[in-house]
Amino acid sequence: MSHPTRTLAAFLAALDYPTLPERVVSRSEELCLDWLGSALAGKGQPPIPLFERYAQRMGPASGASESLTDRRLTSPHFAALVNAAASHIVEQDDLHNSSVLHPGTVVFPAALAAAQELGASGRELIVAAVAGYEAGVRIGEFLGRSHYAIFHTTGTVGTLAAAVAVGKLLGFDEDRFVHVLGSAGTQAAGLWEFLRDGAHSKQLHAAKAAADGLLAAYLTAEGLTGAQRILDGKQGMAAGLSQDADARYLTDRLGERWALEETSFKFHASCRHTHPAADALLALMQSHGLSHDDIAHVTARVHQAAIDVLGPVTRPTSIHQAKFSMGTVLGLIAVYGRAGLEEFQRHALAEPQVIAFRERVSMQLDPQVDAAYPKKWLGRVTVTTRDGRTLSQAIDDPKGDPGNTLSRDELEEKFRRLAAFSGAASPAEAQRLIDWAWQLREQPRIAPLLQPQMRENNSGVHA
Amino acid sequence: MSHPTRTLAAFLAALDYPTLPERVVSRSEELCLDWLGSALAGKGQPPIPLFERYAQRMGPASGASESLTDRRLTSPHFAALVNAAASHIVEQDDLHNSSVLHPGTVVFPAALAAAQELGASGRELIVAAVAGYEAGVRIGEFLGRSHYAIFHTTGTVGTLAAAVAVGKLLGFDEDRFVHVLGSAGTQAAGLWEFLRDGAHSKQLHAAKAAADGLLAAYLTAEGLTGAQRILDGKQGMAAGLSQDADARYLTDRLGERWALEETSFKFHASCRHTHPAADALLALMQSHGLSHDDIAHVTARVHQAAIDVLGPVTRPTSIHQAKFSMGTVLGLIAVYGRAGLEEFQRHALAEPQVIAFRERVSMQLDPQVDAAYPKKWLGRVTVTTRDGRTLSQAIDDPKGDPGNTLSRDELEEKFRRLAAFSGAASPAEAQRLIDWAWQLREQPRIAPLLQPQMRENNSGVHA
Repeated sequence: MSHPTRTLAAFLAALDYPTLPERVVSRSEELCLDWLGSALAGKGQPPIPLFERYAQRMGPASGASESLTDRRLTSPHFAALVNAAASHIVEQDDLHNSSVLHPGTVVFPAALAAAQELGASGRELIVAAVAGYEAGVRIGEFLGRSHYAIFHTTGTVGTLAAAVAVGKLLGFDEDRFVHVLGSAGTQAAGLWEFLRDGAHSKQLHAAKAAADGLLAAYLTAEGLTGAQRILDGKQGMAAGLSQDADARYLTDRLGERWALEETSFKFHASCRHTHPAADALLALMQSHGLSHDDIAHVTARVHQAAIDVLGPVTRPTSIHQAKFSMGTVLGLIAVYGRAGLEEFQRHALAEPQVIAFRERVSMQLDPQVDAAYPKKWLGRVTVTTRDGRTLSQAIDDPKGDPGNTLSRDELEEKFRRLAAFSGAASPAEAQRLIDWAWQLREQPRIAPLLQPQMRENNSGVHA
Repeated sequence: MSHPTRTLAAFLAALDYPTLPERVVSRSEELCLDWLGSALAGKGQPPIPLFERYAQRMGPASGASESLTDRRLTSPHFAALVNAAASHIVEQDDLHNSSVLHPGTVVFPAALAAAQELGASGRELIVAAVAGYEAGVRIGEFLGRSHYAIFHTTGTVGTLAAAVAVGKLLGFDEDRFVHVLGSAGTQAAGLWEFLRDGAHSKQLHAAKAAADGLLAAYLTAEGLTGAQRILDGKQGMAAGLSQDADARYLTDRLGERWALEETSFKFHASCRHTHPAADALLALMQSHGLSHDDIAHVTARVHQAAIDVLGPVTRPTSIHQAKFSMGTVLGLIAVYGRAGLEEFQRHALAEPQVIAFRERVSMQLDPQVDAAYPKKWLGRVTVTTRDGRTLSQAIDDPKGDPGNTLSRDELEEKFRRLAAFSGAASPAEAQRLIDWAWQLREQPRIAPLLQPQMRENNSGVHA
């Protein structure tokens, strides 16, 4: 019987390297490097060491898969767990607009861990990532805005995206993909409630999505069966977790539209819902020559989801929570001209000028912005100056969006900054990882990336 | 700030052995043995070996915690995963009526695995189990019938129940219990959609609930923070997963009402929603001296949840799925006078008389039964005989319910039958485990139960 899940599964089973357009392959390499930078930057950031310790306590002391932040070898389950948590803490990992899914932080940890254990090639890793992105984005779009209002889509849908990526590495056929979606979908979880308290759940969600998806795929390979219509069945995900699901998204232009290349790189080190307003404020201040002191009030005119996610955060008490504070982000932009890792680390919580600016920022629902969302994330700010002027600025493509993407040079610079921020990789190692990523399609075998004895192998291809 | 989650957390933190009534301690020992029997009976049943293999592939090759079906030592994470899956496959594990939660299959695997690693005493294990049952049942009641209509409560709420039990073993205070509920609640998952296909998700749900709850507790012990109001917050479990949540249940008579002793033992080896009708049919056939051949049609008059869960199963294709087929269960009762493990294994799928009887059974919503549910699970059947009579039977306390419970002799007999069914323990081992359970409160230290070198220790207390 044909139904949307089966159509999606058939597409995933048929996907192979020669069918991918060059620009999709190239973008996969870029997203892989960008993800790797976020994972390295998580080293030492609370709560990442807790995940490392859990992996040490519960997992094996050796293995073929690599936990990047502590450079330990372990089983794929725990490498996926730790690397996903690590890559979702500094808020620099990629985001797909219309699905509001962070695909990289769930797809790459699971796929890399499995690829290392399975000895997959770079091309197989690329195809796995593409499968994970294409499925995850469509399922996120399918579940719609009502889902995202309560659920952290990267936790819920991320489980399915990770499962699909690993399933591709395990060579699944159409039936297996249907089963793995069933077993991943029935594990899908992640609620936004933690935001109110600045709790650690965002990293837990990414970690669990990657590990649970991997678990679903490995069990499916051994014969575990799953619901045939977990997405649109009567007691499936849409029934339980959405009020506005639309099954047409599940099969939207499969093989023609590549969701992976619609994915945005993050420029600012904050929640993506703050980026459009940050870019608009920066542009406004530059074009009018304003300093933060000139500004009496900023109204960020936003879509409803920004209010849902950022609204609970009024006075941030941790650096991570500050990344969900519109006032803090705009304060950093206004005072320092950027809201990068270093600005957050040094100035987000204690700098009086930033705190003062934060209190002069409010959010307001803008019907036009809301209507364009989630396809477009429009930046609209209205500023009242101390000398009585009212100024407005509009930005339609925030920095990092497909229409305003980062170049490979900018991605390299971002990667080096992320690696240096945590010290998880030396400048020489960072360069090797950049070279590795730009040659991903030529790698004969995905080995651990930061083990001394492995460096020879990894650099061999372009030596 | 006081709120229901904090009140519940304070109760859990304060719970200790001397505060437990004797009958609660005694019932804990019975539930522990009953759970152990279900876990052993799962050996070799699909899909349990898949979980064993995953644990071997992803976990360590040694440890202090025991995977019961393959007798391997591993870390608590994987012992909890395998034992929970195993104890939820033969449909003999306990059930709490008004929460529609199977507490044993999630609480005991997590608590036993942690107790073995931590070297906890029997009394500490008992207190942990009580904490898990008391919290789990109240959270299940809180989420209500709308939750259970879509979600497998044992998967969702089971994650919190398991987390609480392990948190108790880890010595959590009130704050830690609030955090662990947050981190467990945000992982809560499990959809009924798999029932339609007879897929393996029911075991996956139990396995994941136990392991995820344990993960939440171990991470919380190290400092992971969670949402403060995951249950009733604006973007918490009730908001996302229920339409009829009632926060009063969360703190219902804490310390006075003991939910653990309201838990039912399962007599028939099938979904609990079939039990009231099975008992009613058996009583009717006995009182009227009917054989299965005398019966033209049975109408099981049931509550709505029975239709939600059993309705999708029309023609079962696996033994496990047959346990969710009202027709098959009543067919086994009618033909063999019982619906135990052996009857399912031998006759549920292929015996023509059972299949023929199955086709003569229908379910009908009964407003009186539905109004009493979930507090009471009433059994009502109407039978039309081939000679034209219409007969009815009512049962108010199905066999195994608190009002019609199993004696220790009956529990021992059930346990021996479960162990013998799979061959997971020899008769001598089964006797040792019975002795161990009846002395649980005197065990100085919970060691692995089936390791050759451990038998001395475990039997030492009553030698």
